[in-house]
Amino acid sequence: MNTPIVLLTGFEPFGGEAVNPSAQVAQALHGQVLQAGGMLARVEAVVLPCVFGTALQALEAALREHRPHLVLSLGQAAGRCELTPERVAINVDDARIADNAGAQPVDQPVVPGGPAAYFSTLPIKAMVSMLRSAGVPASVSQTAGTFVCNHVFYGLMHALQHRPGVRGGFMHVPLLPEQVARTHGQPSLALPLQIEGVRLALQAALTHAQDLRVAGGTLN
Amino acid sequence: MNTPIVLLTGFEPFGGEAVNPSAQVAQALHGQVLQAGGMLARVEAVVLPCVFGTALQALEAALREHRPHLVLSLGQAAGRCELTPERVAINVDDARIADNAGAQPVDQPVVPGGPAAYFSTLPIKAMVSMLRSAGVPASVSQTAGTFVCNHVFYGLMHALQHRPGVRGGFMHVPLLPEQVARTHGQPSLALPLQIEGVRLALQAALTHAQDLRVAGGTLN
Amino acid sequence: MNTPIVLLTGFEPFGGEAVNPSAQVAQALHGQVLQAGGMLARVEAVVLPCVFGTALQALEAALREHRPHLVLSLGQAAGRCELTPERVAINVDDARIADNAGAQPVDQPVVPGGPAAYFSTLPIKAMVSMLRSAGVPASVSQTAGTFVCNHVFYGLMHALQHRPGVRGGFMHVPLLPEQVARTHGQPSLALPLQIEGVRLALQAALTHAQDLRVAGGTLN
Amino acid sequence: MNTPIVLLTGFEPFGGEAVNPSAQVAQALHGQVLQAGGMLARVEAVVLPCVFGTALQALEAALREHRPHLVLSLGQAAGRCELTPERVAINVDDARIADNAGAQPVDQPVVPGGPAAYFSTLPIKAMVSMLRSAGVPASVSQTAGTFVCNHVFYGLMHALQHRPGVRGGFMHVPLLPEQVARTHGQPSLALPLQIEGVRLALQAALTHAQDLRVAGGTLN
Repeated sequence: MNTPIVLLTGFEPFGGEAVNPSAQVAQALHGQVLQAGGMLARVEAVVLPCVFGTALQALEAALREHRPHLVLSLGQAAGRCELTPERVAINVDDARIADNAGAQPVDQPVVPGGPAAYFSTLPIKAMVSMLRSAGVPASVSQTAGTFVCNHVFYGLMHALQHRPGVRGGFMHVPLLPEQVARTHGQPSLALPLQIEGVRLALQAALTHAQDLRVAGGTLN
Repeated sequence: MNTPIVLLTGFEPFGGEAVNPSAQVAQALHGQVLQAGGMLARVEAVVLPCVFGTALQALEAALREHRPHLVLSLGQAAGRCELTPERVAINVDDARIADNAGAQPVDQPVVPGGPAAYFSTLPIKAMVSMLRSAGVPASVSQTAGTFVCNHVFYGLMHALQHRPGVRGGFMHVPLLPEQVARTHGQPSLALPLQIEGVRLALQAALTHAQDLRVAGGTLN
Repeated sequence: MNTPIVLLTGFEPFGGEAVNPSAQVAQALHGQVLQAGGMLARVEAVVLPCVFGTALQALEAALREHRPHLVLSLGQAAGRCELTPERVAINVDDARIADNAGAQPVDQPVVPGGPAAYFSTLPIKAMVSMLRSAGVPASVSQTAGTFVCNHVFYGLMHALQHRPGVRGGFMHVPLLPEQVARTHGQPSLALPLQIEGVRLALQAALTHAQDLRVAGGTLN
Repeated sequence: MNTPIVLLTGFEPFGGEAVNPSAQVAQALHGQVLQAGGMLARVEAVVLPCVFGTALQALEAALREHRPHLVLSLGQAAGRCELTPERVAINVDDARIADNAGAQPVDQPVVPGGPAAYFSTLPIKAMVSMLRSAGVPASVSQTAGTFVCNHVFYGLMHALQHRPGVRGGFMHVPLLPEQVARTHGQPSLALPLQIEGVRLALQAALTHAQDLRVAGGTLN
């Protein structure tokens, strides 16, 4: 029998940056075997283009190729201090800047006719709890924005509707120290901690079929 | 013929505050007649309890009583600098603090079996555009949180599914200066500007059947 | 006998802005007679150029002309939520952007050979206390920056060394709502509240020869 | 001939924290020999109590014992994202919380009769420049607050007045990831990066007798 696959995606750099921590984290964990609850799972990493539409085609190709047991997509979040599992993907593209192919959709659906939103099927509270216990800053996020990150998150959850039993979700990661050393005054998180945090989050996801019942919301 | 009604809701104070700007704004506009695109509309204001469930019962009673043409619900948003029309309501209650009846639901649906989310049917970009043109700070918000504000927003949009032609949405308003004068270091917006801003937002909503196609998203 | 004079200075717009709230507040209070502790005082407002050196020449001319009893200089502070009486002026010009005459000094003394710093001689804690009591957001600030605001504050305190009995200080005021309506996502404070706050701060300064002994510091 | 000594101080934990990154960084660099511009220097680390007065006695004992060539004091700064060399120490203690001995002075001088402020004699621009070049987030800070950090910084600069040729200054360091994993939503910087950053800052200080002429100020 084959080892179950965890598909872990990151993004290529965008917005004038030379690097993207989400790609670096995914590549660092590529090929690692996770032990979780007596189960083994192997990480397959894929780096997606930061391009509306094309990113989803690449994601769907990876889903077909690797037939994963579980999927976590990562994206870079400037301004955030913590690893932030996302709660919900919404069916809208509304781009504040152009993507890497120059497109800047405004209020277009990710999937025409699709539902307004999909919730993550990963145990986001358990992931946050495990990260915090290990000393890695983490919080639940209530919005993945409206750019290519949310686009991929929504497209992923839409694709998983036809793959019963495959769970998936999205997590934003902070900028790297080397990125904010150029732009000043923004929070960052060092790469080794990001890698360790994503590894722990995957383990939490693999071992928790049900999420914890702990508060993770915001007042507004 | 009767004047069309705009239902404008606010909330009672919560979280230890003595006042809630959303209630003050709603009450200040109560009875006002708005002229918009050759049409007249009269504002009916209702103050909702900050209680899961009970708030929606009060909202539904107001919908039945006033049979509004358009509905805007308001809520207080500590930490925000601007009037922020909300894009999307999600089907989850996840309370970081207890509501005014002591309830603190975690990851409960607002409407069991309801869709994951509803988008606002108000022209949020047009509302932001009109406010900014008038010198009132405003931005689109991608999350209404997971407390009673989002609960009412979701419940409102759910209730409007059975009222074709009635548009509705939610807008968060900042704290008042007098509130932050006690707690220090938080942004605020003076009541007269909040009232003027909500009045202008209602006019924009009444005059724009279709929203503007301008970017209003976030990267994350 | 002549009415004692309160000299209140603001700045012309800078940094690409069309207005400067500090000038608007000063002009709004020009000519007002303050009653404070049985004493009357009349406000003389002067708007200073946002230019290193020239601003201080204009300030010194105003000191000679009006022979004030008390001086409060105001300046605009983007990013601040509150009226912030400044604690200390430092003897350095270090300009992140060019001033209105194109000069951008780096690590130059305001007054060569002057002391490293001067403390405000206004009762900054009493001013904050009175503002908060009146519902106006206010906090003590530990730094006036290193641009023309600090330059004028330092130059003012230096000039007052030779005018025994004349007290003086500086207060930063937030951006106006109309300013942030163009730039988005920044805190603001409405002009009427700024005017009322500065008026109250002047009254507090006139009535408190000694400052209150209440904490107003920061950990870092 | 003896190797020149760099005295590097940190603080014990305070404010309810179990650790203080400033102490951990200092201890990690204790005994290291820095090579800078053909010169060798050895780091002596001392951890100071977070207590007004007592901290300065411990600092002065360390100055007498180690007779350092250069002194850098470190302190923890919640809310900051970057390593921040401080520009200026002010002659005031104004404690928002009690120190570790329960004292909470308000508007007391650090040194009665001392000057209002001392500027750092370390090349703060060169330190920031070297850190940024190495990918470590850093900025000049214009205020060290009014708690025990500023107290030690002021006391250090006062003590160095009688030690010609000995340069000194202060740098704040961010919280550690493990600290913010407990408190949520605050920026942090991983310990290895803090250690590397302080090491580089010391090298920059040893190699730059004169500071760089580059802007490092703030508008307010």
